[in-house]
Amino acid sequence: MTAFGWSLAGTDGRGRAGTFHTSHGDVCTPVFAPVGTQGTVKALTPDQLESLGAGLILANTYHLYLRPGHQVIARLGGLHGFMGWNGPILTDSGGYQVFSLADRRDVDGDGVTFRSHLDGTEHRLTPEKAIAIQEDLGADIIMALDECPVPNDRDAVEGAVIRTHNWAERCLEAHTRTDQALFGIVQGGIFPDLRTDSAEFIAGLDFPGNAIGGLSVGESKPETLAVLELLDQTLPEDRPRYLMGVGSPEDLVEGVVRGVDIFDCVLPTRMARNHAALTRQGRLNLRRAEYIEDTRPIDPACDCYTCLKFTRAYLRHLSVSGEMLAATLLSIHNLHALVHLMDDLRQAILELRLNAFAEEFRDGYQKHRDPEA
Amino acid sequence: MTAFGWSLAGTDGRGRAGTFHTSHGDVCTPVFAPVGTQGTVKALTPDQLESLGAGLILANTYHLYLRPGHQVIARLGGLHGFMGWNGPILTDSGGYQVFSLADRRDVDGDGVTFRSHLDGTEHRLTPEKAIAIQEDLGADIIMALDECPVPNDRDAVEGAVIRTHNWAERCLEAHTRTDQALFGIVQGGIFPDLRTDSAEFIAGLDFPGNAIGGLSVGESKPETLAVLELLDQTLPEDRPRYLMGVGSPEDLVEGVVRGVDIFDCVLPTRMARNHAALTRQGRLNLRRAEYIEDTRPIDPACDCYTCLKFTRAYLRHLSVSGEMLAATLLSIHNLHALVHLMDDLRQAILELRLNAFAEEFRDGYQKHRDPEA
Repeated sequence: MTAFGWSLAGTDGRGRAGTFHTSHGDVCTPVFAPVGTQGTVKALTPDQLESLGAGLILANTYHLYLRPGHQVIARLGGLHGFMGWNGPILTDSGGYQVFSLADRRDVDGDGVTFRSHLDGTEHRLTPEKAIAIQEDLGADIIMALDECPVPNDRDAVEGAVIRTHNWAERCLEAHTRTDQALFGIVQGGIFPDLRTDSAEFIAGLDFPGNAIGGLSVGESKPETLAVLELLDQTLPEDRPRYLMGVGSPEDLVEGVVRGVDIFDCVLPTRMARNHAALTRQGRLNLRRAEYIEDTRPIDPACDCYTCLKFTRAYLRHLSVSGEMLAATLLSIHNLHALVHLMDDLRQAILELRLNAFAEEFRDGYQKHRDPEA
Repeated sequence: MTAFGWSLAGTDGRGRAGTFHTSHGDVCTPVFAPVGTQGTVKALTPDQLESLGAGLILANTYHLYLRPGHQVIARLGGLHGFMGWNGPILTDSGGYQVFSLADRRDVDGDGVTFRSHLDGTEHRLTPEKAIAIQEDLGADIIMALDECPVPNDRDAVEGAVIRTHNWAERCLEAHTRTDQALFGIVQGGIFPDLRTDSAEFIAGLDFPGNAIGGLSVGESKPETLAVLELLDQTLPEDRPRYLMGVGSPEDLVEGVVRGVDIFDCVLPTRMARNHAALTRQGRLNLRRAEYIEDTRPIDPACDCYTCLKFTRAYLRHLSVSGEMLAATLLSIHNLHALVHLMDDLRQAILELRLNAFAEEFRDGYQKHRDPEA
């Protein structure tokens, strides 16, 4: 076991309840990590994040590398001090954003050259550079550089898997900070043989945690779930598994019952800025006229600050009036909803009733519940 | 003394320290009221407002009348419940915003007809309507309808004074809620004789508080101060005086030493959204490159949440990155700065050293301090 060991507290079916130990505290899993792209979870203070129960947050290497720069953040004492968050932080490698730049980047075996979306300047990202940047940022969990291809283009996926594996080895080699856990990433698109090969290769490198990349990028939901079920058989059971970029309530439940431990996604905060509230029964669009005099909280069963203090009527008023407070209050609620959904899933695992919990959730959940509200 | 009595705790020169009693708690004066135009002080939760020390907040009748509507707010339990603020609230009459609509409004002796800036619909505001709306909103301090003219156009000011006086009487007559304090408003532009006449007339109506309207609307600073000095001689000493729409640090100090007790202004929160921080030494523009690695807080002498927790470097990063959190953190700091400036002015009055405090403030203050920072 490494310094970042993950200890298993219990399992139920494929579901796993555990604790991941980091230099900035323990993370109970399964866990959902809110995304703080530019070193801030949008519209929230660190105190609000802590109050709503966030245990692990994610920041994006690509954005922070470009602005204010990893060396600036290093000189300012690292990301924890910079953004005033003393809990565990995870950074991605920057690769996903760079590969999303489409016609602004060129990949080769050694790395990828890209142009900044901010000012068009040219930059180069290699496995060694991705690690150096993340060591400067100083997160507790950092990620190997990988390539995330279109998931159903076999040629593209095969090439990406080769590069991803080579880069994983180089990242391991380059990584020097002993207070950071470096996770490897499995690729392979929707192809079972490639996924299995990739999982075996990455598992063989003995990372303290393994991530599942290249999902939720355009494939169908059954394809996503099939890959998760396949990887559950291949990835080591004694290491946490991180499903990158996934975070709707329904996807979290389906991921946990298939053995995933860590998730992150911009969905809850992006939805909040678009006036949508997440609940166990589905999503509410707070701009709808039906809420104009609705004195109920978003979710009567929720005990977040927003639900304890404000009515749907007030939230609707803030939303239609374009007030920033709408984004803050809905972000608090949406993140609280996902954080506590994970807490409840963990409890269900520990009490050996995960399947019943998942069934009940599926029965009660309609993705868009407004028309029936 | 009415139920809303203002008790004087001490005076020093023209400065006054007091307490205004309302149904939602006492307000220590002098006081600065943050502005919550649409029923929210922009970018802040009520908890953040309370933490930074806000004692009285203002909401705008014009905006809330149009959206969501005063009757909606009344059915939802009034403004306090609607916006989750249990402390004292002040509403204006809506007149100032309506008169600002320029070519969208027509004034006559009975009231003013205007078109909504939201959808162009036609509305009519009379003294009776302004009171009815404010009774529905349910603030602790409400304002008579007045007309705020261009301050140096004698004909316009004379007409506005006549209407303002007539409307003040009608507002008094229309007001029925005994849990609200209705304040009268003095007009008269920059003309000493009109100001004195107006102050005598309004004082004669025996409002529990008197407001000074029609200042900070284009006249010079010496003209503003001359009017304040004049009114200090005419307005009753046993009632609080409210200088509407004024709120830079330098104007607050000059108002307090001339006998003003209550102020409100969008300046601190608007500045926050424009990346400017207020300090006792002057304003900082947080977007400036010089702050990129500045590890100091905005103001080392400040103990607000923002200054205790974040560096100028981080605030600059948030500002240049367009993050909402910049507005939140700078609003917390700017409001805290003004609220505590008022606390310090009050203490200086009670300790009979107001003049020395004001002198020291003037010596240390440069409106735009960046070039020398």
